[in-house]
Amino acid sequence: MAEYSIGVDLGGTNLRAAAITKDGIIVEKISGSTNLSEGRDAVISDIVDAITRIKRKAGAGRLAGVGIGVPGFILIEKGIIVGSNNLPEFEGFPVRDEIERRLGTQVILENDANAAAMGEKWMGAGKEVDDLILLTLGTGIGGGIISRGRILHGFVGMAGEIGHMTIYPNGNPCGCGNHGCLEKHASATAVSSMAALLHLGDNVTSEDVYKMAAAGDEKAQMIFASMGTALGLAIGTLVNIFNFPLVLLSGGMLPAWDLFAPPMMKEVERSFTFRNTKTTVGKATLGNEAGLYGAAYLPFQALTATIS
Amino acid sequence: MAEYSIGVDLGGTNLRAAAITKDGIIVEKISGSTNLSEGRDAVISDIVDAITRIKRKAGAGRLAGVGIGVPGFILIEKGIIVGSNNLPEFEGFPVRDEIERRLGTQVILENDANAAAMGEKWMGAGKEVDDLILLTLGTGIGGGIISRGRILHGFVGMAGEIGHMTIYPNGNPCGCGNHGCLEKHASATAVSSMAALLHLGDNVTSEDVYKMAAAGDEKAQMIFASMGTALGLAIGTLVNIFNFPLVLLSGGMLPAWDLFAPPMMKEVERSFTFRNTKTTVGKATLGNEAGLYGAAYLPFQALTATIS
Repeated sequence: MAEYSIGVDLGGTNLRAAAITKDGIIVEKISGSTNLSEGRDAVISDIVDAITRIKRKAGAGRLAGVGIGVPGFILIEKGIIVGSNNLPEFEGFPVRDEIERRLGTQVILENDANAAAMGEKWMGAGKEVDDLILLTLGTGIGGGIISRGRILHGFVGMAGEIGHMTIYPNGNPCGCGNHGCLEKHASATAVSSMAALLHLGDNVTSEDVYKMAAAGDEKAQMIFASMGTALGLAIGTLVNIFNFPLVLLSGGMLPAWDLFAPPMMKEVERSFTFRNTKTTVGKATLGNEAGLYGAAYLPFQALTATIS
Repeated sequence: MAEYSIGVDLGGTNLRAAAITKDGIIVEKISGSTNLSEGRDAVISDIVDAITRIKRKAGAGRLAGVGIGVPGFILIEKGIIVGSNNLPEFEGFPVRDEIERRLGTQVILENDANAAAMGEKWMGAGKEVDDLILLTLGTGIGGGIISRGRILHGFVGMAGEIGHMTIYPNGNPCGCGNHGCLEKHASATAVSSMAALLHLGDNVTSEDVYKMAAAGDEKAQMIFASMGTALGLAIGTLVNIFNFPLVLLSGGMLPAWDLFAPPMMKEVERSFTFRNTKTTVGKATLGNEAGLYGAAYLPFQALTATIS
């Protein structure tokens, strides 16, 4: 087999890994669950086992390296996760070095949304461009920014926190300490909370609201209009700041595109730069695979990069 | 003399040029006025004359190139100015190519705020970092973003329009077609218009308001608090998006720092990333020279750059 790389996507509930060639072909893929209840050491062992298993299955090719996408802020030089709600046990722990030690292979740790953005640039909807912004619409809103073909990290690795852009200065409070963060007005969680405010039922999920809206419920439709408006405000500002050719949306909320995209685009139109350049706002195409592709791409990029 | 470069700063009222060595030493400087009333051709002749004069004065050194900072959006590959309120006669005109033709020297055209950001990175407050954001607080608010040591352009050159970030979704209308743009709430013009709303007098300038506030006038102080709050909202969001180590402010409003900085920093504190990293929000140090330095640096950078 040709040279390959291993991408890992560590989520709060799932652990997935893939061996991917330099041409972007997935040759092996495995998935399992993240056993957080068994503690940090068990999760690290699961990651190491998954990588070892997939390495064995991939056979004879040269392994370029391992990339791991994880939720939370990454201190990129130290390889440490901070502020991850999904992985509290990893807070401040040198997880990259520990995995490297056990594997005997170099590991790159990356924020999951950043990895997904890189994946879309490598093999997905962003193949034709060098610059893009990805927003992942899930229980929160993650962001990944690809600038000149590389992930924009900022100086400690926390760049791309698009979910925490202030959209409404006096908006909903956020766990980050801010008010009016995008993700408090446009995530799946925000959709559920608006449903509760509108008395659409107890414990209504964003998927329930989607079904109600698709069936014609006006309150449910209002919720998606509100979500789309918040998203559009953020995207319009991002277009003015970056003037990138492509803004992609992905994540669990994407099936509701037809409901939220029209009000979203109405707000994006506020941007002078959007109206005067050919910015595309569209759907990511790799779905859950984006993070695997992006994580796997990072070791290849690290090998070829001299100037960033 | 050593190798040098010529930086030009073309404003709505002033035309300035400097010959600067590779070490950042200004060896010659001239300034004049921009005679817009005499038409586009006269202004171009003035620019070419200024460059020719300073080239003659600079003497024997090798000229690396010419950089020109201008207000307005620049279509960077085409070297064309679009949407400049200060230079309407240049709209859509291939100004770079025309100046190149007359000079017989390669010219780089750049947005003035981008040039100023580059200048601060080269010889000013940003010397120690590779990544910074500059906000110029004048009649409008310009922005320049330096990422990995280079100006962030976006795909047509319009990146960095920080003055048009949406701060208040239902805020003041802006000529760009948006509502609630930062510059409609935090520029010198915004300060004047708030003064009019508070009946502080007819045709009150931002400098008048500053003097009133410094003398203890509570309404005038409220205006700077309002201006600082809007700025802080924008900067907090920029910190969350970029995680850059440095955000600089410059421009005619900078003397009012003590009035607007406290409310500004209160809003910046909303950013999780700001609270958890050592982001500095501070004053630019080169004043009006920043644009000259930055414009002069661009030809040097173009000569050394292979990978951007």
